[in-house]
Amino acid sequence: MTATRPLPANRIEAFSDGVIAIIITVMVFDLKVPGPSAPDAMWADLAALLPRFLFYAMSFLILAIMWINHHQLFHQVRHVDGRLLWYSIALLFWMSLIPFGTNLLGTDPMRWQASFLYGLILFMCALSFTLLRHHVVQRGLLHERISTRAHVRIRNKNILALAIYLAAAGASLVSVYISFALFLAVPVMYVIPERIAHQDE
Amino acid sequence: MTATRPLPANRIEAFSDGVIAIIITVMVFDLKVPGPSAPDAMWADLAALLPRFLFYAMSFLILAIMWINHHQLFHQVRHVDGRLLWYSIALLFWMSLIPFGTNLLGTDPMRWQASFLYGLILFMCALSFTLLRHHVVQRGLLHERISTRAHVRIRNKNILALAIYLAAAGASLVSVYISFALFLAVPVMYVIPERIAHQDE
Amino acid sequence: MTATRPLPANRIEAFSDGVIAIIITVMVFDLKVPGPSAPDAMWADLAALLPRFLFYAMSFLILAIMWINHHQLFHQVRHVDGRLLWYSIALLFWMSLIPFGTNLLGTDPMRWQASFLYGLILFMCALSFTLLRHHVVQRGLLHERISTRAHVRIRNKNILALAIYLAAAGASLVSVYISFALFLAVPVMYVIPERIAHQDE
Amino acid sequence: MTATRPLPANRIEAFSDGVIAIIITVMVFDLKVPGPSAPDAMWADLAALLPRFLFYAMSFLILAIMWINHHQLFHQVRHVDGRLLWYSIALLFWMSLIPFGTNLLGTDPMRWQASFLYGLILFMCALSFTLLRHHVVQRGLLHERISTRAHVRIRNKNILALAIYLAAAGASLVSVYISFALFLAVPVMYVIPERIAHQDE
Repeated sequence: MTATRPLPANRIEAFSDGVIAIIITVMVFDLKVPGPSAPDAMWADLAALLPRFLFYAMSFLILAIMWINHHQLFHQVRHVDGRLLWYSIALLFWMSLIPFGTNLLGTDPMRWQASFLYGLILFMCALSFTLLRHHVVQRGLLHERISTRAHVRIRNKNILALAIYLAAAGASLVSVYISFALFLAVPVMYVIPERIAHQDE
Repeated sequence: MTATRPLPANRIEAFSDGVIAIIITVMVFDLKVPGPSAPDAMWADLAALLPRFLFYAMSFLILAIMWINHHQLFHQVRHVDGRLLWYSIALLFWMSLIPFGTNLLGTDPMRWQASFLYGLILFMCALSFTLLRHHVVQRGLLHERISTRAHVRIRNKNILALAIYLAAAGASLVSVYISFALFLAVPVMYVIPERIAHQDE
Repeated sequence: MTATRPLPANRIEAFSDGVIAIIITVMVFDLKVPGPSAPDAMWADLAALLPRFLFYAMSFLILAIMWINHHQLFHQVRHVDGRLLWYSIALLFWMSLIPFGTNLLGTDPMRWQASFLYGLILFMCALSFTLLRHHVVQRGLLHERISTRAHVRIRNKNILALAIYLAAAGASLVSVYISFALFLAVPVMYVIPERIAHQDE
Repeated sequence: MTATRPLPANRIEAFSDGVIAIIITVMVFDLKVPGPSAPDAMWADLAALLPRFLFYAMSFLILAIMWINHHQLFHQVRHVDGRLLWYSIALLFWMSLIPFGTNLLGTDPMRWQASFLYGLILFMCALSFTLLRHHVVQRGLLHERISTRAHVRIRNKNILALAIYLAAAGASLVSVYISFALFLAVPVMYVIPERIAHQDE
């Protein structure tokens, strides 16, 4: 804060790790049966939890990918400036709202407002990350010389994710099922190419 | 994600540490008396918590062993590839459901569905770990040359744990007490030989 | 405790990181809709959460700045003595009450007592930090020779923050809106000069 | 688990850090007003939280001291064996029950059972730590040659803490106020000599 010395990248990384670990884990505490079930009502009570479970799994996957992306970026960071620090905090702030959005979706899966807000939160996460990445590349804060082609490819992927999340928020006005499909499209886009890329190595 | 560089093993380890620390700790928050007790009802209220306490202790032990196994594996990992990363995330996902299963057991210990789901969650944890370990050994991602005999012994133990958890899930249809005994069999199997092995040193 | 050896600075830092990560994250779990909403009541239910959301964002920002200040100080610490350890624990204790204050504000934003207690908690956080910093500078526990001018500037900023938080607590008796504005004044004071300072580099 | 290689001391330390950070922080979530207060009932609602607040502060202090003791011990550990690992896990288990005991005390401060169980939990924590320390000293697992006199002094302090916690549990049958005083005696015993010792340096 006092500008004498920005925080080293590995402290931001460790703190972000802690915050993300909590966000990703504590969501499971919304997965609860309301109380002892009547003998024949146990499956019904569990079935009522199914949407919550599915949205939990989806948010877990999305957060895991955000964590991976965050680390891959920070491992390349050579120098931290004040703006990088604040973009990181903005990213953590929006990520911290994912459990809220997940709970909203689990409580009211069919209401468009739930999908709308969840999509908006994911959009804000992706926007913070894109700004963070753009700043880091622009200012030359990276450790290694990565080819411009790689940067362009990653940036295009980020922008695509932004567009998909925005579309998902908008689609909730038409049908929440379109939103659900779009929410899943981004993690799928990140998981699949990555596996191909590693097979190429 | 961008395949430029997989995460180093120690970051996956630190993140997993955080997630497991939260899973293992936050479960205790289901251990609560409903409110102030009437003068003579305090022991009755506490006695009603006893099943929850016992299942909490069991899950704590199971998670502690998973944590130890996870670390012992990761300390030997020399190189992380994309699949290893995703197996780790799958393992954390299934482990994150243990508090849900524990709460279910504590709420409805006599309903077979609770033991069935808890057994299934533990089975999925053990399966993720077995796949993770198999992949790491197969691809030669380990730091040190460990004797094939040691690998076979560990793999057999993993497979035995898998079979026991599956049996525990199935046994819930006959008697939940058989399930409870089987849930405990795996930690006992891991704690005891380990102490003998260390006495041999 | 046994005075054979004080803890190294990086362990206090890592532990504080963990505590702050939990404080900053778990607050989001007070952001919850009470249950499924009636078709036309969803926006109303969400609007009712708006004050909670705003106070959450404010506390997130305040905690982020405390985290940054804490790290910037600890990165300069060369030697830890017992008193530094206890000031750190006092700081964590008061910070751990911020979620309580935030929840109180979110529940009863218009009651002056909520703003009064929240202001008091922030004041105690700032006081612990000022004492911690004073002790560290006084006893020469810092790694690097930082100019006296820088120390005086930082100390004056700390004292100003103390005065603002105390004023915010007091102002709650007149109008909670004055308190809200003063709560925000400190983070703004820390965010803005920092960006200017970095542009000067 | 597979006895090929015990965990290094710093991993047990980092994991314990995480667990203790969560235990110490999440307790604050029991500090909550039940809902919006009536205009004149705000102070009454807050006053009703006072016992919870005081027990929270007490548990925070006790846990902080346990954390310090734990670290001071682990910083001297040169070699980890299986038994040390299991004593550490036992210690974390009993520490994880402190939030349960704290909540019980906050809910029913005047019922002797609450003080009895809280005292028992603290006794089990102190017992695990004493066994852990005894094992480490006995087996020569420490890094540095610490004078026998220092070891005897620390051991005597541990045994005194054990006796006080047991007395506190027993005293609950006579008067909970004696228990409260004894709960506080141990942290006071640890905080005060430590400051004197540092002044001697």
